[in-house]
Amino acid sequence: MAAKVGIVMGSDSDLEIMSKAAEVLEVLKVEYDITVISAHRMPDVFYDYAKGAEDKGYKVIIAGAGGAAHLPGMTAAIFSLPVIGVPIMTKSLGGVDSLYSIVQMPAGIPVATVAINGAQNAGILAAKILAASDEELLGRIKEYAAGLKETVAAKSEKLAKIGYQEYLKESNK
Amino acid sequence: MAAKVGIVMGSDSDLEIMSKAAEVLEVLKVEYDITVISAHRMPDVFYDYAKGAEDKGYKVIIAGAGGAAHLPGMTAAIFSLPVIGVPIMTKSLGGVDSLYSIVQMPAGIPVATVAINGAQNAGILAAKILAASDEELLGRIKEYAAGLKETVAAKSEKLAKIGYQEYLKESNK
Amino acid sequence: MAAKVGIVMGSDSDLEIMSKAAEVLEVLKVEYDITVISAHRMPDVFYDYAKGAEDKGYKVIIAGAGGAAHLPGMTAAIFSLPVIGVPIMTKSLGGVDSLYSIVQMPAGIPVATVAINGAQNAGILAAKILAASDEELLGRIKEYAAGLKETVAAKSEKLAKIGYQEYLKESNK
Amino acid sequence: MAAKVGIVMGSDSDLEIMSKAAEVLEVLKVEYDITVISAHRMPDVFYDYAKGAEDKGYKVIIAGAGGAAHLPGMTAAIFSLPVIGVPIMTKSLGGVDSLYSIVQMPAGIPVATVAINGAQNAGILAAKILAASDEELLGRIKEYAAGLKETVAAKSEKLAKIGYQEYLKESNK
Amino acid sequence: MAAKVGIVMGSDSDLEIMSKAAEVLEVLKVEYDITVISAHRMPDVFYDYAKGAEDKGYKVIIAGAGGAAHLPGMTAAIFSLPVIGVPIMTKSLGGVDSLYSIVQMPAGIPVATVAINGAQNAGILAAKILAASDEELLGRIKEYAAGLKETVAAKSEKLAKIGYQEYLKESNK
Amino acid sequence: MAAKVGIVMGSDSDLEIMSKAAEVLEVLKVEYDITVISAHRMPDVFYDYAKGAEDKGYKVIIAGAGGAAHLPGMTAAIFSLPVIGVPIMTKSLGGVDSLYSIVQMPAGIPVATVAINGAQNAGILAAKILAASDEELLGRIKEYAAGLKETVAAKSEKLAKIGYQEYLKESNK
Amino acid sequence: MAAKVGIVMGSDSDLEIMSKAAEVLEVLKVEYDITVISAHRMPDVFYDYAKGAEDKGYKVIIAGAGGAAHLPGMTAAIFSLPVIGVPIMTKSLGGVDSLYSIVQMPAGIPVATVAINGAQNAGILAAKILAASDEELLGRIKEYAAGLKETVAAKSEKLAKIGYQEYLKESNK
Amino acid sequence: MAAKVGIVMGSDSDLEIMSKAAEVLEVLKVEYDITVISAHRMPDVFYDYAKGAEDKGYKVIIAGAGGAAHLPGMTAAIFSLPVIGVPIMTKSLGGVDSLYSIVQMPAGIPVATVAINGAQNAGILAAKILAASDEELLGRIKEYAAGLKETVAAKSEKLAKIGYQEYLKESNK
Repeated sequence: MAAKVGIVMGSDSDLEIMSKAAEVLEVLKVEYDITVISAHRMPDVFYDYAKGAEDKGYKVIIAGAGGAAHLPGMTAAIFSLPVIGVPIMTKSLGGVDSLYSIVQMPAGIPVATVAINGAQNAGILAAKILAASDEELLGRIKEYAAGLKETVAAKSEKLAKIGYQEYLKESNK
Repeated sequence: MAAKVGIVMGSDSDLEIMSKAAEVLEVLKVEYDITVISAHRMPDVFYDYAKGAEDKGYKVIIAGAGGAAHLPGMTAAIFSLPVIGVPIMTKSLGGVDSLYSIVQMPAGIPVATVAINGAQNAGILAAKILAASDEELLGRIKEYAAGLKETVAAKSEKLAKIGYQEYLKESNK
Repeated sequence: MAAKVGIVMGSDSDLEIMSKAAEVLEVLKVEYDITVISAHRMPDVFYDYAKGAEDKGYKVIIAGAGGAAHLPGMTAAIFSLPVIGVPIMTKSLGGVDSLYSIVQMPAGIPVATVAINGAQNAGILAAKILAASDEELLGRIKEYAAGLKETVAAKSEKLAKIGYQEYLKESNK
Repeated sequence: MAAKVGIVMGSDSDLEIMSKAAEVLEVLKVEYDITVISAHRMPDVFYDYAKGAEDKGYKVIIAGAGGAAHLPGMTAAIFSLPVIGVPIMTKSLGGVDSLYSIVQMPAGIPVATVAINGAQNAGILAAKILAASDEELLGRIKEYAAGLKETVAAKSEKLAKIGYQEYLKESNK
Repeated sequence: MAAKVGIVMGSDSDLEIMSKAAEVLEVLKVEYDITVISAHRMPDVFYDYAKGAEDKGYKVIIAGAGGAAHLPGMTAAIFSLPVIGVPIMTKSLGGVDSLYSIVQMPAGIPVATVAINGAQNAGILAAKILAASDEELLGRIKEYAAGLKETVAAKSEKLAKIGYQEYLKESNK
Repeated sequence: MAAKVGIVMGSDSDLEIMSKAAEVLEVLKVEYDITVISAHRMPDVFYDYAKGAEDKGYKVIIAGAGGAAHLPGMTAAIFSLPVIGVPIMTKSLGGVDSLYSIVQMPAGIPVATVAINGAQNAGILAAKILAASDEELLGRIKEYAAGLKETVAAKSEKLAKIGYQEYLKESNK
Repeated sequence: MAAKVGIVMGSDSDLEIMSKAAEVLEVLKVEYDITVISAHRMPDVFYDYAKGAEDKGYKVIIAGAGGAAHLPGMTAAIFSLPVIGVPIMTKSLGGVDSLYSIVQMPAGIPVATVAINGAQNAGILAAKILAASDEELLGRIKEYAAGLKETVAAKSEKLAKIGYQEYLKESNK
Repeated sequence: MAAKVGIVMGSDSDLEIMSKAAEVLEVLKVEYDITVISAHRMPDVFYDYAKGAEDKGYKVIIAGAGGAAHLPGMTAAIFSLPVIGVPIMTKSLGGVDSLYSIVQMPAGIPVATVAINGAQNAGILAAKILAASDEELLGRIKEYAAGLKETVAAKSEKLAKIGYQEYLKESNK
């Protein structure tokens, strides 16, 4: 089956963060491609990627970048379907530079921006977008959310049972 | 036909901005509902809205709010399909409070955030999400983008023809 | 005796910080409950918690959360008595996102916000709120404050006696 | 009956904002005093005020100040019951200076901080603090909240009825 | 003679600011072109512009944009000679979004960034770049700087002569 | 008698703000000079000014500048006695740029920084510096402070007498 | 001889930073006292300190504090001679909270603010203030500045001689 | 051959960052000098440096500084050819202080500012400025850019081949 989500990032130093998008898409059984393309260092390759994305069958692209992060916005300028932007945390400014560079897009060219380093959420959002026309995927997303809820509920119960002192001791082991 | 997009905002003072989402959805021929619900002042009404949204046929919800903006994130906590957040500009902090309150969501619950006051882009993004499974809508979105391009191209030509002094004079009339 | 203060947080990763509220309430002999409830991941559980809080006898709720921190504000939207918000420090933005998400509440729904990671102060503030109608508790609060004063006074004396070079040497041991 | 809430501000230029606290306390039938005392320009008067506040019967003090806003924190250093801080918006920094000066208090001395210019919420919060031991006041607070809800509900209905174009026209009249 | 400097901006709403670059280049007798090209709305036109710039004889490009400002950085990704970026002031964030989007470029692709709305300085900087190999232009730049100095010197003298009260009265006329 | 305080600013557009320093020095009967010198546009004139300042008898220099504000720090690099810096508010960044450019000086070269647009305080601070060895001036400073206190006290009394509604009405006339 | 400079800080956790002020005053042979007084935890002790400071012979007070840093401003409200404020770096906000709390003082009550953690500069500034009426101290300050210059000059020479690669190797040993 | 680029920094603590400018200039075969001059601690030496720079044959100066960074702007005030500013990251404010101090220059005196710690880009920008009149250098710059592109392309291929899990494992070795 053809991939429906393209994951792209500007540098392989973003891979550790961006791989969280891939991981959650695997859990949700959504096909994806993942690649590194620098809009700044290889603009031609980038253009070809963005122009060819619809024909490859991508329905959503997840683009992550840090600093003066142009990859998500430029992808959205070329690719007509939804683009999700992941602002990567930076050492000097904490990622507020990446966030502003991605979210403050001009009228006409939206980028669906998630939290700084929020690649996992980018993956979930991509799945939700596909789920707008895919009942089965929607079901898997709901199961996934139920799982998150249960995880917190279990922690909540444990805290109620053993008290916060004990809980912290176990966490810090 | 049932509305596919719900537009909701926390206060009618946000309506002037949020109506831009409605306007662009009309242009793109996407059915929508628009309403005012305060997650803070009427939490029960809000809960019913968010829980009933899927059954009403909404495929996307656009939620706008300012300051400690909880409406988009709380909608995303309940509604399983994509939620788009519009941070409304604030007088004291320029909307950076709204932006952080909407975009910095925890893992598991994404909100697709657009620019401060970026309701028009929220509308376009909602349409793009629907277009992932609607070729005709995708066609209309491409036409719309072409229109934006032509508008800028026309201005570019005019500037080339009359020069910047004349252009500015006409703009400031 | 029934607990008068509810301490709630969105994630068990906040427990190390939030436990400081519990600790100071113990010192001040104020009954409390402490639990983990994610407004985002388990909105129904959260609603039940907030709605049932008054009947359980809570007079104050302390809510801590980080990032797009909606727990304190949503609690305040449902629970009619005072809600104290603790913004949890975040890795990327230092907690300014948590702070804005908690303090910038719209008219009608106040959250009594304390410093970033200021859970100890949240506990003291909860006690002060109860002390508005409890002379004995007020007495204990004044003793506690006197203790803080003595601690600083002792350090001040020591510094005067041994000089700053010696003082720093001992501190860095 | 003796006033239970003291409202104090550092300058009469803050009165327009701070009077919103007085107004809401009147609605909720809570007795209050309102005065102007500069901690910086009249530190002795300020000390006497803060020291005498408990004997005057104040259960809560609302303190508003802008810029390097020390009034709320210094009041909390002397007065043992709850102090609510209102950061006043500033021309240069939008009030982020006032906010940080009020909310970032050291351990031991909490100030219950509300939004920038959030004096109305400060009044409501003061009432909620008193309501922790006053069932009738709690009743009035709930009525007040119900009123806020109805106001939004009415707007919501109107919007549903006349549509956003008409609604905006009427608002801008 | 062929233009040596290209001035480009993302929207004609930036023209009022960006025309200051053109004005100072005229004073310094440097040939330039000025045009409006949106990297987001017309990416193909933009690519052709940036790729053809060297052949047209441009030695420097001045690019101005606001918000998620990608035009300067994307130009620098394609055009091998110096690109000067002008961050345009924005209503919500004052232009700090534009500044970060332009200045925080990754290693390999510099953009010479000037102050927010600093188009006049962008023009002067372009001239200085050309002056590195053009003694006559360097002479004109020095004359221009001398003129600036004289303007301030004249004001300084006037202030010394008439005093600040009189000076302010005349300024406010 | 020779002037003891030099007031200098980078542009005559700062004069309206900086004249507040002059005004308060007049009230406190401290001799001063006031002038406009741009460290950037006339570096030689600036150097001569800073180098000659001690011989002219200046004991303190007050320097105001906005944006990348180098005048105060460069004065402090040359003049051995205290330099007071006044960060001037800017349109885009509110003066946080001016503040950082003035206050964040490296070890060895302090600038005594006051609030954004705080020229009046700069004048008072200059007087306090001189008052460290001038008992009479110290007396005048104390009188001045007493005057400020009385002004607030009078407002406080008026507010107590006529109530806040009436007070606001009179203020808004 | 009586101390001419008082160094005070809100917490002994600030001592490591604040001791830099003491060290430089020793080098410059200026008598000083150093102590820890919390304006928040021991307001009475603080008041006595600030009120008695002039009689003790202090000509300048250096006050350091972090977060909602009220110590410098409250000292300036009581002590009539110059107060120098040192904003202490904070973990969450980097010290921008401390900086705003100290520098943004209202008209009438200046605090001479130095850089975040800039205690060494606070010491130098205190000396410069005393030097306004003490030629010998001014001489020592000039010698100190000459020493700083020589240190940099020596590094500059070494860099010229051994090249940057060798220089960095030696530095990183 | 005489050096065409001067690299200067305010402190040898900036050398580790600033040496990246030197390294890239070596790769591009551009002659340069590198030195440490503090505009604050040795203003006379600095003035001589800036005034003599043109005669020494410098066509561009790269100046790096942190905090209240005045070196780039003061260099630009004296040297008539292009000055490139490198804002050095700071511990407390992440370098936003350095950035504002360098980029927000007044009209007339541009500094070509690069990213925080962006010394490598400063070197490339200097080379591009020289390349405006040096075809061979332009050729070397294009080769360098091609090299960067190949590096990313190789990573991209590797990722495609071995998958992200394996890629991350190898990176973390």
